Amino acid sequence: MVKKFDDLISKVTECSVKTVSVAVAQDEAVLEAVKAAKERNIANAILVGDEDEIRKIASTLNMNIDDYKIIDVKDKTEAALKAVELVHNGEADMYMKGLIDTKTFLKSVLDKEVGLRNNKPLSHVCVFEIEGVDKLLFLTDVAFMTYPTLEDKVSIINNTVEICNACGIENPKVAPLAAVEVVNPKMPVTVEAAELTKMNEEGKITGCIVDGPLSMDLAICPEAAKEKGAEGRKIVGDADVLLFPDIHAGNLVYKALVHTAKVKNGNIITGTKAPVILTSRSDDFETKVNSIALGSVVAESLKNA
Amino acid sequence: MVKKFDDLISKVTECSVKTVSVAVAQDEAVLEAVKAAKERNIANAILVGDEDEIRKIASTLNMNIDDYKIIDVKDKTEAALKAVELVHNGEADMYMKGLIDTKTFLKSVLDKEVGLRNNKPLSHVCVFEIEGVDKLLFLTDVAFMTYPTLEDKVSIINNTVEICNACGIENPKVAPLAAVEVVNPKMPVTVEAAELTKMNEEGKITGCIVDGPLSMDLAICPEAAKEKGAEGRKIVGDADVLLFPDIHAGNLVYKALVHTAKVKNGNIITGTKAPVILTSRSDDFETKVNSIALGSVVAESLKNA
Repeated sequence: MVKKFDDLISKVTECSVKTVSVAVAQDEAVLEAVKAAKERNIANAILVGDEDEIRKIASTLNMNIDDYKIIDVKDKTEAALKAVELVHNGEADMYMKGLIDTKTFLKSVLDKEVGLRNNKPLSHVCVFEIEGVDKLLFLTDVAFMTYPTLEDKVSIINNTVEICNACGIENPKVAPLAAVEVVNPKMPVTVEAAELTKMNEEGKITGCIVDGPLSMDLAICPEAAKEKGAEGRKIVGDADVLLFPDIHAGNLVYKALVHTAKVKNGNIITGTKAPVILTSRSDDFETKVNSIALGSVVAESLKNA
Repeated sequence: MVKKFDDLISKVTECSVKTVSVAVAQDEAVLEAVKAAKERNIANAILVGDEDEIRKIASTLNMNIDDYKIIDVKDKTEAALKAVELVHNGEADMYMKGLIDTKTFLKSVLDKEVGLRNNKPLSHVCVFEIEGVDKLLFLTDVAFMTYPTLEDKVSIINNTVEICNACGIENPKVAPLAAVEVVNPKMPVTVEAAELTKMNEEGKITGCIVDGPLSMDLAICPEAAKEKGAEGRKIVGDADVLLFPDIHAGNLVYKALVHTAKVKNGNIITGTKAPVILTSRSDDFETKVNSIALGSVVAESLKNA
């Protein structure tokens, strides 16, 4: 059972080693993570960007730069297009953001000729290992889709179930979250959560078990779920996927967890032909490495699909 | 400086001992908290409800029932009205929910004759001590107001500033939270957060420092705030009040904290003439005692106002 990031990393090392293509790689924090990913046998890297800058940073990191293919492209937009093309063409398995703004990076992801579009809406998944919670939690969407409609939420669930499967979690339990665990017509979020549950029961959302609306305690805390009465519920504090009402709820929980609980996490953009790693400046080193590991298992799973 | 619940409890014991009036007091968990509050010199209690039941539970808790005034009212609605009237008349200082549904309890709070209406909107404040955060955090509204308008948010801020002051925190820093720390017209929450900030600068919201929109990390983590660039910001990871976009965001963060971080918390309904304690079944023993302590300092502050 995959319950921790170490389990996920064991899973990675059982597969063929994947390659990450980095857009505008002259970024110290990103290169540090790429170096660690290589050393831990999680992934190789192709570095696209300003070669002089890349070499300069690599030397300060004691990084053996001869282990990496470097493609010298000074212009950032061009570097991103070149880096994403490598993934598009199968020369690399996943795509990672370096020293480039998110907007330009995402434009390259969505580029019609060399990008990674898959005719699906893109969504973001953040995978958490939390001390005291006995499984990995897949939070979505805490960073990308702002105000998902019901239809978007179906796409988010489908995208996230693929990530769960790639991580070895079959038929994940999906909790559409709200402040309360009962439908209240004055809270549209709860109505949509019930609708998603019904769609799952009717076979319109497959490969997972949806049960909502659920409050956070009923989703992640078996004791709270049992105390409050779990009768007739399919999720009893054992959710795998936490589906948030909107980006504010998701992002606030995500950052509260990172800054107050004992966690490990990694995150990925999904809905694309290949995994896209879009870590932010504020993500720490281990989060970046974990994200590359997550990208590797997802790339392996897509290869076998 | 009041930075922890222990500081708050020291503050309580410096005041005259307050009395809590309990509606439908035949509730084991509530009586246990009331007993501890008495033993720790935090508050006395008047128990309104089914006297036989109250005595039965008290004996199983080794509670010296002669220390308490009991008023025997079997009917729950009547018991609540009687209990709230005691606060209304000044015979007790705060009002607490026992074995009665929230709706009936709140009806008694809002009763025109014997209730605690104050011509202000009611809101909920949850006070947290979190390991790793160097001050008490006042979360609002995580349980009562569902989708506050801009006007409601002004009331919530005013209500919460009163609670901060009662706890010894003058001129608190209020962070209207969002997924991002910049105004984005596509995210109405961020526009409202900026509007609240402007109202504060123009003197329309007073007694506090408002700075939003803020993401969670910039609100509660000084290191993150400094890293991301805190220039021109009035809050640099040192917020006192976390103002949530809506009940879903607030409640999901609240329960995530309770179930994953090391916390102590207590909560209270405010906007009323006297503090109202509405703990839920899922709140643990210490949370109920902390809520009574919080009620005591707020009652003391209202007395001196």
